[in-house]
Amino acid sequence: MRIAFCCTDTRPEPWLEGLRAALPGAEVFDWAPGAPLADHAVVWQPPQAFLDEQAGLRTLFNIGAGVDALLRRRLPPGVQVVRLDDAGMSVQMAEYVCHAVIRHFREFDGYEADTRAGRWSFRRPRPRTDFPVGVMGLGVLGERVARALTVFDFPVHGWSRGAKSIEGVQCHAGEAGLDGFLAASRVLVNLLPLTPATEGILNRRTLSRLRPGAYVINVARGAHLVDEDLLALIDEGQVAGATLDVFRTEPLPAGHPFWTHPAITVTPHTSARTLRDESIAQIAGKIRALERGEAVSGVVDVGVGY
Amino acid sequence: MRIAFCCTDTRPEPWLEGLRAALPGAEVFDWAPGAPLADHAVVWQPPQAFLDEQAGLRTLFNIGAGVDALLRRRLPPGVQVVRLDDAGMSVQMAEYVCHAVIRHFREFDGYEADTRAGRWSFRRPRPRTDFPVGVMGLGVLGERVARALTVFDFPVHGWSRGAKSIEGVQCHAGEAGLDGFLAASRVLVNLLPLTPATEGILNRRTLSRLRPGAYVINVARGAHLVDEDLLALIDEGQVAGATLDVFRTEPLPAGHPFWTHPAITVTPHTSARTLRDESIAQIAGKIRALERGEAVSGVVDVGVGY
Repeated sequence: MRIAFCCTDTRPEPWLEGLRAALPGAEVFDWAPGAPLADHAVVWQPPQAFLDEQAGLRTLFNIGAGVDALLRRRLPPGVQVVRLDDAGMSVQMAEYVCHAVIRHFREFDGYEADTRAGRWSFRRPRPRTDFPVGVMGLGVLGERVARALTVFDFPVHGWSRGAKSIEGVQCHAGEAGLDGFLAASRVLVNLLPLTPATEGILNRRTLSRLRPGAYVINVARGAHLVDEDLLALIDEGQVAGATLDVFRTEPLPAGHPFWTHPAITVTPHTSARTLRDESIAQIAGKIRALERGEAVSGVVDVGVGY
Repeated sequence: MRIAFCCTDTRPEPWLEGLRAALPGAEVFDWAPGAPLADHAVVWQPPQAFLDEQAGLRTLFNIGAGVDALLRRRLPPGVQVVRLDDAGMSVQMAEYVCHAVIRHFREFDGYEADTRAGRWSFRRPRPRTDFPVGVMGLGVLGERVARALTVFDFPVHGWSRGAKSIEGVQCHAGEAGLDGFLAASRVLVNLLPLTPATEGILNRRTLSRLRPGAYVINVARGAHLVDEDLLALIDEGQVAGATLDVFRTEPLPAGHPFWTHPAITVTPHTSARTLRDESIAQIAGKIRALERGEAVSGVVDVGVGY
């Protein structure tokens, strides 16, 4: 069995060592032109040249939660695309989002500015019933985020393509449920997969339906958000601000207004990193299962896009 | 039945209105010299003159979680001191502490400094097993904080005077358990009551026993912490930093080194505000129970101090 590693922006050695240790019978190699054909591949934004030559490839393991970049490429016929199930990402996402929601709700940014100015300040506590949080996307990451938010007694709404049921979360579904979900939410957390149906979904029309003084947290993909619409709605006072971890171009280009906007917090796509050891263990386990002829979780519906 | 309101730094009108609405039969008044004697009193740091004249006072309701300031005063003989049970404070405390722990663990301060400098940065994720959190004090607030931290998969330790059992939290107890608790913790959260036994408990001896690179979060009382010991241990590199909400003198005096220390985050005693409506409902409910001759929760053991 041959396993190719083909990941942009990732140092291969620790992955190769880890995969070899976890799968002693396999030939594991870093792909380069001229390398042998593989049975399985571990990829992140692989070059098209790699995909074009993989005639016998059975499985593409994507080492990230979002497969949008991979699905924009031409894939080998019959290949199965498998996402990471969680691999330590959902808890990171829960941390990132809860930190951002609490920071906004409790005005800790403002308190820190007061402290820098040497001011012992008082801000009237705001009722949390005025800050319902809406989570778009209720997959592994979205569900964990929504559950974590309920720990802090926020009213939590969720929206997904198909109907879901999560304890403590008021779930809305499909096109028909979108406007009601938006109207119920003040803090909007985006964790949708990026597909043709969700690209640009955070736009003037949708963000205008949120409660006044809305706050936007985008931790999915930059292409979900229409940047100019967010900036205009903040200018107009409908949206209070945003925490953004993902951008249409990454790194966020110098001079982009998000860098210096006083109401926008920018982080460098750090909300949920792929954790190497957890990912290697999960991928190795799935390869062993596939070799035994068993089904595995995380198989992507290429037609739907996630 | 007469109910006196006697609170420093609190606007009386909304409290008086709320208590009158909740207890229609009662005479509720803001105390001033010459006011009638009361059966029950709602207090926050009341003047000694008030306490000295209350010969028939049955109950002192303290509108805060900590009764240390009240117990330093000379109390009317036979009076029962009753704390607020929770009244919306425990969820605020969970928010404050989780925000501070996540912010430190995930280095969001550092990321924000990078963003201010226009830098798209990468920081290697740190394993959460290297950041066990220790919660000192497992009352209503401490238990809620400890439970909330388990949601983010941190190893959580707890320490209290008497033995406790909380799911997902490794509990240590008493003097004999203190050193083991400290040695197991890297992030230390203080939620102890302030008593003669706990004053100055965060000092060179105890903080030196924490794991290297320790982080201190004090949300109880300023007098728990020996300020100079914390500053020296940060200088020496044993402690990485601190988030402090409470101080020996409040407001924190101008010129105090905490104001501008780069490793210390200062907030103005805002971790858990007394929420008026919840507190009024709780106090009114307890007065009705006492008038029916029933026992109420939150009665303070004046000898122990909480």
